[in-house]
Formats: sequence, C-alpha cells, structure tokens
Amino acid sequence: LTEPLLGWDVGGANVKAARVSAADDPAPVVVERPFALWRDPGGLADVLQETARRLGPARKMAVTMTAELADCFATQREGVTHVLDAFVQAFPQSETWVYGTDGRFRSPDDARARPREVAAANWVAAATLVARHVRDALLLDVGSTTADIVPILDGCVAARGRTDLERLQSGELVYTGLLRTPACAIAGRLPLRGGSCGVAAELFAIAADAHLWLGRIDEADYTCETPDGRGRSRRECGARLARLVCADLELLSEDDVSAIARHLVLTQERQLGAAIRRVRRRLGDAAPGTAVVVGAGAALALAAAQQAGLSVLDLASQLGAAAARAVPAAAVALLLADAP
Amino acid sequence: LTEPLLGWDVGGANVKAARVSAADDPAPVVVERPFALWRDPGGLADVLQETARRLGPARKMAVTMTAELADCFATQREGVTHVLDAFVQAFPQSETWVYGTDGRFRSPDDARARPREVAAANWVAAATLVARHVRDALLLDVGSTTADIVPILDGCVAARGRTDLERLQSGELVYTGLLRTPACAIAGRLPLRGGSCGVAAELFAIAADAHLWLGRIDEADYTCETPDGRGRSRRECGARLARLVCADLELLSEDDVSAIARHLVLTQERQLGAAIRRVRRRLGDAAPGTAVVVGAGAALALAAAQQAGLSVLDLASQLGAAAARAVPAAAVALLLADAP
Repeated sequence: LTEPLLGWDVGGANVKAARVSAADDPAPVVVERPFALWRDPGGLADVLQETARRLGPARKMAVTMTAELADCFATQREGVTHVLDAFVQAFPQSETWVYGTDGRFRSPDDARARPREVAAANWVAAATLVARHVRDALLLDVGSTTADIVPILDGCVAARGRTDLERLQSGELVYTGLLRTPACAIAGRLPLRGGSCGVAAELFAIAADAHLWLGRIDEADYTCETPDGRGRSRRECGARLARLVCADLELLSEDDVSAIARHLVLTQERQLGAAIRRVRRRLGDAAPGTAVVVGAGAALALAAAQQAGLSVLDLASQLGAAAARAVPAAAVALLLADAP
Repeated sequence: LTEPLLGWDVGGANVKAARVSAADDPAPVVVERPFALWRDPGGLADVLQETARRLGPARKMAVTMTAELADCFATQREGVTHVLDAFVQAFPQSETWVYGTDGRFRSPDDARARPREVAAANWVAAATLVARHVRDALLLDVGSTTADIVPILDGCVAARGRTDLERLQSGELVYTGLLRTPACAIAGRLPLRGGSCGVAAELFAIAADAHLWLGRIDEADYTCETPDGRGRSRRECGARLARLVCADLELLSEDDVSAIARHLVLTQERQLGAAIRRVRRRLGDAAPGTAVVVGAGAALALAAAQQAGLSVLDLASQLGAAAARAVPAAAVALLLADAP
C-alpha cells in the first residue's frame, strides 16, 4: 500500500475516523468528534471535512455507520442515503467504499440501493479485525451508548444476528453505554438510606453522571451533552443524580448520591454480564473463555467480563490506545487497505 | 364568596388553571396549557398571563406547583422562587396564596422562605378536595407524566409521604403517565414475533406514542412534544415505536408495532397496580376498597384499579369532566374560596 486511507465510523452521537498508512499499520491515528447528528443532520458534511482535516489528506475512504438509526430520519433507508450524500458532498474527489454486514465493501450507489446491508455494520468490521489477532474470543466493545458482544470462533465472526434488530434479540447488542444511557432506562428503583425508591422517568441524568461522580471518568471524558445543559463538574453531575429521586443536593448527602451512582454502574455491569452469559450459553462448549475489551467503556466491559468468569485480553497494547477506543473506524480502514 | 378565584397547578410540562366563583362551584372552568418550562423558564410569566386571559379576570390566585423539579433549576429552592416571581411579575395587582403540603395557604414571601413546604403540594390539594366528597377511597390521579396514589381515610388525607422523595419511597408517587414517560423507562425488553427483544435506551418514543397507536388517545390529546419533533399521526407514532427495537415501519408489521404498544401500556397498568397494592398493604384492614380515578390518564388509573380489585368511582360526574382532568388546579381554587 502506498497511499493513506481514512476509515470512518459515523454514529448518531459521535463521528470517529482513523488514518492508516498500511494494512498492518501498527498504530492508526484516530479522531473522535462528538456530534449530535439528530439535531443538525445538515451539518454532517462539515463535520466530516473538519475531521478529515485533522487527520491529513487521503483519497480513499472506508465508511461504516450506525447513524442511520438517528430519529431525524424516518427510515434507515433515508438515514443511509443521508450519510452517504454527506460523504460525496464533503469529499467529491475521494473514492468512498462502504462496508457491509457481509464483510464486503461496496460503492455508495450499491449501498444506497440496499441500505439494510450497510446499516449498523461497524461491529462486523471491528470483529473481523480482532479475529486476525485472536482466534477465539468474545469481543466486548462498549461505547458511549451501546455495547457489542461478538463471538469470534476459530478466527471467524460467529454472531447470530446481523441487523441491530436481530442483535437486540440475540443479546449481542446491548443498549447500555458509558455516557449517554438515560439513568431511568438503567434502573427502575434506586437505593436510598437502607430502603429503595422509585425513579423519576425523565431525562434527568445519564450514565456519564454516575461514572463521573464515582471518579471513573473525568470531565474531558464526558464528551456528550449534559441532559440539563449545565456543566460537567462533579457537583453538577451529583445534582442530576439527586433529581432522579426528585431531590437535590440540599436534601441528599454525598453518601446518598454515591449509593445511587454505584447502583447505576453496577446495574450496567450486571446487565452486560447477563448478556455475555446468554451469548456464551448459545455457543455451548465452543464458547470462548477469553474476552477482548475495547471502546470508551472498556472498564465497564472488563468488569462485566470478570463477572462472567472470563479472562480478559486488552487489545490496546496491540492496536494502540486511541484505536482501541474506536476499533470500527480503524478496522474499516485496515480492512480496505487489505482488500483486493 | 362574591369574587371569582383562579387556582393554578404549575407543572414542569403543563400549566393548568381553574376559575371558580364559589367554594361549592359545581363546574369550575379549566384551562390546560402545555408548556416545556425547562426549555424557556423566562417565558412562564407570559404563559400565566395568557392563561388567565382565557379564564377571565380574578384578583385572588391560589397556587400549587411541581415545576420546581424541572432541571432548569439547580435546586427546588431556586425553582419555587422562580415560579412565585413569575406570578408577581404576571399579576402585580393580584393577591397570591401558595398552598403547602400541610394543607395551609401562605404568602409568596413565606413560601420562598420555606420552599420545601410548598414544593409538589398539588396532590394534597386534590386529595383534600376529594375527601369532601368521599370519606374512604384511594385517589388515583394519573397525569401526563406522573401518578399520585393518595389514601383518604375517614375523610382525611392519610398519605405516608409528604415530599416527592418520601412519596417515591412509599409508592404513593409513581413516575409513569399517559404521555411523557420515555418508553425505555417503562420496559427494558419488548415482545417481538413470539420472542423478546432488548430496547434502545434512547428517547425514541414515549407513552403517548403507544396510547395513540392503540387508539386510546387521539392527536388532540397528544399535547406534549414528540420525541423526534415529527408529527402525531398514527404512522409517525408507529415509526417511533419501531425505532425502540432499532427498526422502522419497512421492517416491522402493523401487528409487530401493536404488540410493542400493548406491552408498554400493560406494563404501565401493572406498575400502577403494583403500587396500589403496596399502598393498600400498608393500610391493612383500613385500606379503602374504592378508587377515585381522575387526571388525563384516568383510563390507565381505571385499568390499574380494576387489576387491584377495587371498585371505581368516577369523580367527573361530580366535578365536571374538565375539572376532573385537572383536579389540583380546581382544588386549590375551591379550597382558597373556602379558607377563613
């Protein structure tokens, strides 16, 4: 390979891109750009251009996406078309290849014609890349919003579901993440002073508030918007957590808030652990005993894997820390670099 | 009583007001005005004025609120002060009385000094009024966002909790409602084609989408904002429900969507039924066998009451249909009209 490539993972809340210079590039350069697509779909082309400028020029683009699910699009078809149009608009001189859930690249026109085949294919790219490093493993990719649990058996991606819908059914897609998950979707009750308490079913707090309050992430990691538009300080996160039980920081103690935050994080870990066990049960004796943990929420994945009794392999040492946070973006670039 | 009174129930998503002309006014005139306070807190005074104009002039105002919980306010103290300032600004010539959880009216200055005493007191007003009509009953007031379950024993309000926090703990406040409840906070799994499926933990759909899809409400009843900013047609509600399982209306059938909607509504009914049983268990032999169902979500309350084995009294015949949808607003007005 003589020319550099950009790999893109376009989500509804984040755009991630990686620049690779060879199919065996040991440390792809990665950029993550939070972008609330559903609020400003027309702004995507600009975000793509700006992200590409930070990475440096490349004529060839490898694209995977989950953004088509964003609720600014009436259907996935509309979403896929919109994302691909943004690439054409942003990079009219570039050659763009779209990755599909079958592991093949196709032209934007082919992808527009069969949008189901390219919708939410990013996990296939990640798993295909990981399968080159580890023959048998469960890939656990926990991002800001969702978690992928992908079995790799004998060097092949052995997922049961292909579409998001099928993967939600199989438990291979779990809709919980490090940052954006609404707290009221994590737990219906919260611990309070020895008892338990119902939860306000409002977008008062998100997973990021609990993780930051507990010191598991810092303000720079809290890359999504806050639910109330206020800041990301520990105190502001605590106020959002207190509001989950219709209270505030005048009413709750530091310990009260910590108990709420801990319960939310533990519930996420338990939920992921249960999904891991479910995926492994289906695989029977072939179920891998090793987990590969990647993504911004790798710490959540690690705790869940340990809970499920798996040994853990940290891919960051082989892919580089930045690429391990954004594996699908690095993966589509490396896979395209290697494509015939 | 010689002069008319306005009663106000200022919530975070709705402003409700009632005009009464006597303490025994048989049919108060009621106005409901959806207003997303958290998005535009400064606009409250205008909304109050506009609502008062629709009801006609009154010098005396009775106020209760839940808006102090809105996340535009850092604390309940800030919220209570903001709401009362808006009344002073909107009606500088009026005499305003603020209802407290102790069942007494106080001046705005007294209320500002002790905000906890007037925060979320609207259910006390409603129950106090209902207790004049029914000596023993469970008041079930299901609104757009929350449900109150208030025991009335021997003509007195016999709630265990007074603050929202205490009432969430006791089960007397259930955070589920006819319209605004995020679907992902109602159910963590949804039925799909004989199996079950995880739910996208995003604000993709709300309770209103399920109730409208099933024909339990019509577009005019869907008074809150839609989560995606699109319309309120049955098809648009169905698209939002489909997105809960990362699908769209090209991928799901009419029956698939109906199964999802039914499950959401049944889960709300079951959740309310469980809370009713819990409140009745605490009351032991004294537990009333009759439920009084009011609020925009009276149909949900009715189903839950029947599930819990209660006979049901519809207060609409005694209060008028409009007042039965907004009991706290009518109640504070009638209670102030009757105050010494």
